Amino acid sequence: MVTKNEGLIHLGTLAKQAAAQLATASSEAKNHALLAMAAALEKGSDKILAANALDMAAEREKGQPAAILDRLLLTQDRIADMADGLRSLAALEDPIGKVDKMWYGAQHIQIGKMRVPLGVVGVIYEARPNVTSDVAGICLKTGNAVILRGSASAIHSNQVIVALLETATVMAGLPEGCIQLLTDTSRETAAQFMRMNEYIDVLIPRGGAGLIRSVVEGATVPVIETGTGNCHIFVDESADLAMAEAIVLNAKCQRPGVCNAMETLLVHKAVAAKFLPQIGAAFKQKGVEIRGDMETCRYIVEAKKATEEDYATEFLDLILAVKTVSSLEEAIAHINRYGTGHSEAIITQNYQNSRIFQQQVDAAAVYVNASTRFTDGFQFGFGAEIGISTQKLHARGPMGLEEMTTCKYIVMGEGQIRANVNR
Amino acid sequence: MVTKNEGLIHLGTLAKQAAAQLATASSEAKNHALLAMAAALEKGSDKILAANALDMAAEREKGQPAAILDRLLLTQDRIADMADGLRSLAALEDPIGKVDKMWYGAQHIQIGKMRVPLGVVGVIYEARPNVTSDVAGICLKTGNAVILRGSASAIHSNQVIVALLETATVMAGLPEGCIQLLTDTSRETAAQFMRMNEYIDVLIPRGGAGLIRSVVEGATVPVIETGTGNCHIFVDESADLAMAEAIVLNAKCQRPGVCNAMETLLVHKAVAAKFLPQIGAAFKQKGVEIRGDMETCRYIVEAKKATEEDYATEFLDLILAVKTVSSLEEAIAHINRYGTGHSEAIITQNYQNSRIFQQQVDAAAVYVNASTRFTDGFQFGFGAEIGISTQKLHARGPMGLEEMTTCKYIVMGEGQIRANVNR
Repeated sequence: MVTKNEGLIHLGTLAKQAAAQLATASSEAKNHALLAMAAALEKGSDKILAANALDMAAEREKGQPAAILDRLLLTQDRIADMADGLRSLAALEDPIGKVDKMWYGAQHIQIGKMRVPLGVVGVIYEARPNVTSDVAGICLKTGNAVILRGSASAIHSNQVIVALLETATVMAGLPEGCIQLLTDTSRETAAQFMRMNEYIDVLIPRGGAGLIRSVVEGATVPVIETGTGNCHIFVDESADLAMAEAIVLNAKCQRPGVCNAMETLLVHKAVAAKFLPQIGAAFKQKGVEIRGDMETCRYIVEAKKATEEDYATEFLDLILAVKTVSSLEEAIAHINRYGTGHSEAIITQNYQNSRIFQQQVDAAAVYVNASTRFTDGFQFGFGAEIGISTQKLHARGPMGLEEMTTCKYIVMGEGQIRANVNR
Repeated sequence: MVTKNEGLIHLGTLAKQAAAQLATASSEAKNHALLAMAAALEKGSDKILAANALDMAAEREKGQPAAILDRLLLTQDRIADMADGLRSLAALEDPIGKVDKMWYGAQHIQIGKMRVPLGVVGVIYEARPNVTSDVAGICLKTGNAVILRGSASAIHSNQVIVALLETATVMAGLPEGCIQLLTDTSRETAAQFMRMNEYIDVLIPRGGAGLIRSVVEGATVPVIETGTGNCHIFVDESADLAMAEAIVLNAKCQRPGVCNAMETLLVHKAVAAKFLPQIGAAFKQKGVEIRGDMETCRYIVEAKKATEEDYATEFLDLILAVKTVSSLEEAIAHINRYGTGHSEAIITQNYQNSRIFQQQVDAAAVYVNASTRFTDGFQFGFGAEIGISTQKLHARGPMGLEEMTTCKYIVMGEGQIRANVNR
């Protein structure tokens, strides 16, 4: 696992040293640094905007679409939001050092399970430069050193943001190396970065499906997958159809480009004749393109015929796949086959069906009678979010502060030695 | 992530189907199956012993050392132990379906965090065929389907054991595919097995450092690393030296071949002149070879000079590296540099030093005044253990039943839709 990139080794060594000190920093010291970081962003906003203008100009020249440009853009308001995010982190409870439980084991050794930082966290992400301060703040709050690897398109913005944050933390008395940016954005360096097991404890990719896949394929450092959401809502036979309409419109249209938006609507055949024309008209008004099965096309004239591929696609757009099903079981089977284990919902008034759906659907968040759009650290009440895990290891669903920790068993004895060799 | 090995795809498909059903099986159904599995092992013990004799003969012919042969050997007693292990699993509390906490989030959506199975677990392990039933039992108890990949040397034993366990679970009413053995033990198939992300949720390698490394390097499926333990005991200036002697003898000699045995002894210089001759004599009597620094060699005449390499080695044998240090800080720095994050201990009567050691040493289990040999699921009171994790992600330290689960957020609403786009 040796890499020859000296820049990476330097970053890694510094991060590891910083992590060792940061792990035992007091909550007061970390909160003080977070407030200093917030102030530094506001004070340095002109520098950030100037750097962001360079990034924007380069991307405009490449002819990037408006949506991409908007994600890259920083404004005074957006910088103020970044600073507010850091301040609200300072106000949250510190999970580090909490002993979740303590008990006596064999021969009366006393064992405590204590929350401690993960150590060094690597984050690989795309475009949006506000992620830089969000992630840096969450890592600092939880005592983790972070190495950020943003995209080439945001390099100027990220360099200025990280320089401001880094200086603020050091001025606030924390060690150098708590927050670092990998400025070499080449693929080769990224590939080496993902294999630095000696220096990095966990890698979190944040971005599109392609980015996630390349990290999962290329990394030897443990990865937490985030984000891909092919989410479904099933409108059951017994659903309150007015409630169903409000929920599916919200889940599809409120913010179609995010991972907890609905991508496929499943409708029980018993209510298709009533619900589909109603919802078809509502979606038409919102500019949503419908791709449905035969039954759907019967009731929604504008609908195109859906392909197998459509049911497997995370559109992230105003496109919706629709399918009618004959039973709850068929809906669950469809979801467990095509879903990505993110957020799934049933709209029903039937008690037993609500139980079966929540038991049998295999996903991070399984809803009854609410929009899938609630799968989010802030909506769940975690106060912060570093991403939404779609894997089962370590963290599943919205990842708040607690998900950025691991445990350490502290064991207190009075000279106990182990007596038995076997169990 | 497509593999062309049809055998693997068949195993994976069956496991995935079984996992979906097993996830909602009642505790009673799983416990009934565990008892049936135990009975099947005892009833089939002649078959197991006959198969084991074939494995033993082949390994003897290869001229394997006695220690390796002993690990492969099964006897009536060892089979009875395997059956007892399954019965004691049946008696443990079922973690699945437990809701650790439930609260109200944004707009009064009600959110519960429920323990659910990981899904399909792949276990890659070496020699000891009793691992086969231990692992199968823990996975079944926690509602996970398991695919076992044992070593070629134990293939006959493993085939008979898995056939007996599989039949027993199906007869007990659980679906086919809960417990499967990968009978093709080639390296190529193992390499494909580690990349079956579509079918396997987590891979757990159990075995020597070489096996673990090859899985970490080759896998795309999330891995939980287990086992490597370069454990230290630091005898502080203020230590009760009689207690220190008892603990270090236990940690080194009781079972030197296991991961929680001590590999390096650190001694404060202030007590070196008194403690080293005392412990040197005791270790001599136990046949332990000492490799020490200059100071150690001064006080223990039989000691060889230690190399840098010795401090980094997990001997798993009656060999001990010894180093004298000038301070607590030097001891902690040595441990954090050479340790593998498994189990570390301080022997001290000094309150402040005990606190600093537990705060600053970065390991799964950090002890004060007790032997490192206690790092074990049974000693910790977990009732079962699938391995000892030395990584920070998902599980750290002894992995009991709870570590074989993930969570699912169940969300209950009354028609809530998300209002705000931002935080």
